[in-house]
Amino acid sequence: MADTDRSPFTPGRPRGPELRYGNRPTMKDVAARAGVGLKTVSRVVNSEPGVTPDTERRVQEAIESLGFRRNDSARVLRKGRTASIGLVLEDLADPFYGALSRAVEEVARAHGTLLINGSSAEDPDREQELALALCARRVDGLIVIPAGDDHRYLEPEIRAGIATVFVDRPAGRIDADTVLSDSFGGARAGVAHLIAHGHRRIGFIGDRPRIHTAVERLRGYRTAMADEGLAVSDSWVSLGTTAPERVRAAMLEMLTGPEPVTAVFAGNNRVTVTVVRVLAEQPRRVALVGFDDIELADLLGITVIAQDSAALGRTAAEQLFRRLDGVEEKPVRVALRTMLIPRGSGEIPPS
Amino acid sequence: MADTDRSPFTPGRPRGPELRYGNRPTMKDVAARAGVGLKTVSRVVNSEPGVTPDTERRVQEAIESLGFRRNDSARVLRKGRTASIGLVLEDLADPFYGALSRAVEEVARAHGTLLINGSSAEDPDREQELALALCARRVDGLIVIPAGDDHRYLEPEIRAGIATVFVDRPAGRIDADTVLSDSFGGARAGVAHLIAHGHRRIGFIGDRPRIHTAVERLRGYRTAMADEGLAVSDSWVSLGTTAPERVRAAMLEMLTGPEPVTAVFAGNNRVTVTVVRVLAEQPRRVALVGFDDIELADLLGITVIAQDSAALGRTAAEQLFRRLDGVEEKPVRVALRTMLIPRGSGEIPPS
Repeated sequence: MADTDRSPFTPGRPRGPELRYGNRPTMKDVAARAGVGLKTVSRVVNSEPGVTPDTERRVQEAIESLGFRRNDSARVLRKGRTASIGLVLEDLADPFYGALSRAVEEVARAHGTLLINGSSAEDPDREQELALALCARRVDGLIVIPAGDDHRYLEPEIRAGIATVFVDRPAGRIDADTVLSDSFGGARAGVAHLIAHGHRRIGFIGDRPRIHTAVERLRGYRTAMADEGLAVSDSWVSLGTTAPERVRAAMLEMLTGPEPVTAVFAGNNRVTVTVVRVLAEQPRRVALVGFDDIELADLLGITVIAQDSAALGRTAAEQLFRRLDGVEEKPVRVALRTMLIPRGSGEIPPS
Repeated sequence: MADTDRSPFTPGRPRGPELRYGNRPTMKDVAARAGVGLKTVSRVVNSEPGVTPDTERRVQEAIESLGFRRNDSARVLRKGRTASIGLVLEDLADPFYGALSRAVEEVARAHGTLLINGSSAEDPDREQELALALCARRVDGLIVIPAGDDHRYLEPEIRAGIATVFVDRPAGRIDADTVLSDSFGGARAGVAHLIAHGHRRIGFIGDRPRIHTAVERLRGYRTAMADEGLAVSDSWVSLGTTAPERVRAAMLEMLTGPEPVTAVFAGNNRVTVTVVRVLAEQPRRVALVGFDDIELADLLGITVIAQDSAALGRTAAEQLFRRLDGVEEKPVRVALRTMLIPRGSGEIPPS
């Protein structure tokens, strides 16, 4: 995948209506629109006395129609308010996001900025509600792990100067800074590893098909199989929720069907933990490579395609602070490399 | 421990200056103090026009001196603002807190309320900064996993009506609703289990001594040893950070000292993962019981004292919403039971 070889922050291809950072309306714009002096706007913005209700209303209307927002760094100096950034997560209990959040927090902290998190629980409406609630609570910037596929609702916020970076999955229908892992390349390398160890009937169990990473990893699986001229039976591919019962049923079906698999590629860490349990119960040994590293996978001998979740969070946060520092450039798209870690399960030969 | 047998939410003993919930100043109090009418206060509070700057300043002064806060549920109805609660975590990357946060979020969601998180990274100053920042961003309530041991800084917020519940560790120097696991009883049961399997030289590796749970678990260890008339050598007890290098060094020292241990009790999940790795490298088998369950511990055969981290989060959140619903009672203190899960490592006999 070409993206993988790019150095971070070279411009990506525009893929939607372009949003410009840095063109925020100023207090001067508000003053002109409201037909008042700059000092009056300043008084209204800072809730200082000395403005008649009518004038205040006019200024407020100008603020709203222009999408004006206070310059927050100036405001921090003046009012002592702590700067903050928001992070919209997908699942608070997934350890993958734990490491990512902590990395974002470390960067935020180095910039004297608080991190405020929330979770969409994989619900697009909840994602929107949370992202806008964080904006309303005056975060200076936003990092989003998207659940939905339409982020036009953020356009007014971005135009108003809230820097926004997407991580783990791309933004939908807007062009914005995005930091991803190379899901396609990682899955392709993992499946190629199983093929190199002699497997021909390889299963793929992934997350729901509306999730970008699930689709990219499936594409990596199919490409690796095609690279070696191997056909893929429909019964070897299963996408759906990562609930243990669903994954267990999918795994058992692949093991007992007319063309039973001798190896399986697990599409993420939630899938892997259930697959490991199911395979531990089987009489014959089945090879496994899982996407995402897992704590204690070393002791269990689980071969994985590791994402660097801390690097994802760190890279996204650093890009956010570049934007907050006023760097103006086209939205960038970064894909971070993954790493194959052989530990035994991926090196089991076909039975 | 008597606390364990209490049903949730029977009042606890007061342990500090008592804070009363529900005695919030009203708009009427503000009006009386500022010497204006109720309608005027309402205009100021809701940023409506029709108030002179001088009057507004008088009202604002009354609001500040009384610690008045808008009635937020009424406000949600009027302004469509989303209700929210804040959660101050200790470490975003610790899976124990992931499950706890998700449980809090589920309760919040069932109440139509957003959850906003942040992490103290085990730094008392950061905890205070974050908790106050969340209050300033108008959360309706706060759940705190404390890093510090003095929470008097929250008294003005609690008096002003921000419901506050502490979880996992108790509040310091204020009396507030608190939901804990029975750390003492759990550790005592885990060490008794090792003794019952024939061990006499048992090590304890725990978190830093300023952390309440670390101290309680050490007390459980010492009590279990004393229960059986067993002496504890100084070289068997090690408290400190949970950094892998620190835990590894402590474990190796206990294994190679003049009175080498035949079993070890690990004080939390961060300690356990390192101890498991060190023990896997040893020529002789050493028994292990760890506090906290760990993902895949079943496959690795690790015996644990499991806390129900989801129940901790759920119980704390439900208590918070009882407070937000206006329930007035003395602060309660709940200790949730832990559970011994034998899986092999705790049943290894002394070598």
